[in-house]
Amino acid sequence: MENVSVLGAGSWGTAIAFVLAENGHDCLLWTRRSEQANEINEMHTNSVYLPGISLPGNLKATTDLKGSIQHAEILVIAVPTKAIREISKQIDKLTDTPKLIIHVSKGIEPDTLKRISEMIEEEINPNKLRSIVALSGPSHAEEVVLRQPTTVTAASNDQKAAEQVQDLFMNQYFRVYTNDDLIGVELGAALKNIIALAAGIIDGIGYGDNAKAALITRGLAEITRLGMKIGANPLTFSGLTGLGDLIVTCTSVHSRNWKAGSLLGQGKSIEEVVSGMGMVIEGIRTTKAAHQLSIQYDVSMPLTEALYSVLFEGVPPKEAVDQLMNRMKKQEIEDIFYK
Amino acid sequence: MENVSVLGAGSWGTAIAFVLAENGHDCLLWTRRSEQANEINEMHTNSVYLPGISLPGNLKATTDLKGSIQHAEILVIAVPTKAIREISKQIDKLTDTPKLIIHVSKGIEPDTLKRISEMIEEEINPNKLRSIVALSGPSHAEEVVLRQPTTVTAASNDQKAAEQVQDLFMNQYFRVYTNDDLIGVELGAALKNIIALAAGIIDGIGYGDNAKAALITRGLAEITRLGMKIGANPLTFSGLTGLGDLIVTCTSVHSRNWKAGSLLGQGKSIEEVVSGMGMVIEGIRTTKAAHQLSIQYDVSMPLTEALYSVLFEGVPPKEAVDQLMNRMKKQEIEDIFYK
Repeated sequence: MENVSVLGAGSWGTAIAFVLAENGHDCLLWTRRSEQANEINEMHTNSVYLPGISLPGNLKATTDLKGSIQHAEILVIAVPTKAIREISKQIDKLTDTPKLIIHVSKGIEPDTLKRISEMIEEEINPNKLRSIVALSGPSHAEEVVLRQPTTVTAASNDQKAAEQVQDLFMNQYFRVYTNDDLIGVELGAALKNIIALAAGIIDGIGYGDNAKAALITRGLAEITRLGMKIGANPLTFSGLTGLGDLIVTCTSVHSRNWKAGSLLGQGKSIEEVVSGMGMVIEGIRTTKAAHQLSIQYDVSMPLTEALYSVLFEGVPPKEAVDQLMNRMKKQEIEDIFYK
Repeated sequence: MENVSVLGAGSWGTAIAFVLAENGHDCLLWTRRSEQANEINEMHTNSVYLPGISLPGNLKATTDLKGSIQHAEILVIAVPTKAIREISKQIDKLTDTPKLIIHVSKGIEPDTLKRISEMIEEEINPNKLRSIVALSGPSHAEEVVLRQPTTVTAASNDQKAAEQVQDLFMNQYFRVYTNDDLIGVELGAALKNIIALAAGIIDGIGYGDNAKAALITRGLAEITRLGMKIGANPLTFSGLTGLGDLIVTCTSVHSRNWKAGSLLGQGKSIEEVVSGMGMVIEGIRTTKAAHQLSIQYDVSMPLTEALYSVLFEGVPPKEAVDQLMNRMKKQEIEDIFYK
């Protein structure tokens, strides 16, 4: 039994805390919003993010960031990518002892092109940071809290830390694998949102499963190509955090990236989509980052380019998809994997 | 413009003939049933297999097998796997000139463990067989005849023949890639039906997208492992005929293998499922063949074994899935790809 604090009480942070509390750990869930903390403590629900779910009675919430950071040696960061640096700065400021940081975010910072763990490392002093572990995989929060079978990967450069995270979370319905390819896991988790956006566009236009399967196949190949250039193991992209996460994101109505793409495909503007959904669409920022990465590493990424042209250059979605589908190539393996 | 005959007027054979006729070829569609041939010739519909679709006026159907074989130098075989040898024998008997054979079937013969092209080669005299091309990929017939964007692979040991098939079919909505890995394309096309059956079981039990994504990921890895041992290029399994076809089969209600699995997961017996659906479930025979291949090539295939135990040994589906999900492994890449 361990003390753990989860920073961020959105649907995924709450589901993570649910698993930890069910496993008997002393888990504190931090949120900015006192209403939400009160609801979790008094009603054992988080009705905005996980409607209809009873949370474990031993799960406590708080709005006291300092208290929650000092509560535990193990911290789970569960905030959107653009809030990673800020929460990391707070951790650096509010602790004196080294922490094991688990992050569950999926994104790449535009312009700096840093992965999540790189941002955390830049903001937390090394003597306050024991290790970083990325926890990632095909895992809708809505299914985890129904105790439906779920598998995820704990990835770290520090194998012992990855195994500690595995022990912390593992139970009958939540299975954790370890993986030493932190770069591949973080890149796959982030970049798959680009493909989810594009898959949503395909559905929104009204094209079928044939087109979507072609696009997902091509998309996975291009993020694998980029990942290899950056130093990832290509097999990671065919594992749970690559292919696995891609499938659940591209084929499920739970996915907000898919949903955003679908609205774009139906003809909504990007401004309408973003303001209408009221949630963070990680795939939009990630598309910008991937576009920059493809230039920096000189990797051809036709799907990313097509999506970039829709999101940032005003190209109509159907025009971009048709152009992408019609790029005539002769040899499948050569075209998909080595271009 | 070429003469082409398509042997078999199920949904996929008809969709193939639809594309060929639209491309201006002189296409003859052979069926055993005179009612069906008459309907195609007089009404330009095939209402049992593709309800609501108008077929091209230049597409002709016939019940004359000899006539259709002699009509063309290019023959498309579009019959179930277990009818491949019989139709090949007929071709051998009824022709004197060498044919280009295109097959669109997805299966492996139990006991002999032969791929489709191997069966064809065994039944047709070499001097009556110019080349064999497998045409395969993520392609629901129902979407092709709505002219929705579709990509497939033309695979052959004979690159010129693959390119001829590419030229024959390619149009604005039907995109054809070539691939020289015939073994990988045929194996992927067949073995993905095992994973589709298992994905259907997951859905039928009532488990969610998280479990299904884990299973598809693990399944693709194990068919890749087997394919590599048999001599396929592992990248083929991440291409259109592997991953691509897998996605469309596992996530679509059009798929009969998925549908059969779903009924099994809901508690129906295999006999009830097979008799109730009245269609060939390739995945059932393929599971038996894959089980035999895994023994012959000494490859660990836990998903195939779990499905085999459900189909042929009476293990309850939920028990088999839970055991599969709970196989505790430490390292993701090692477990998924190298075991």
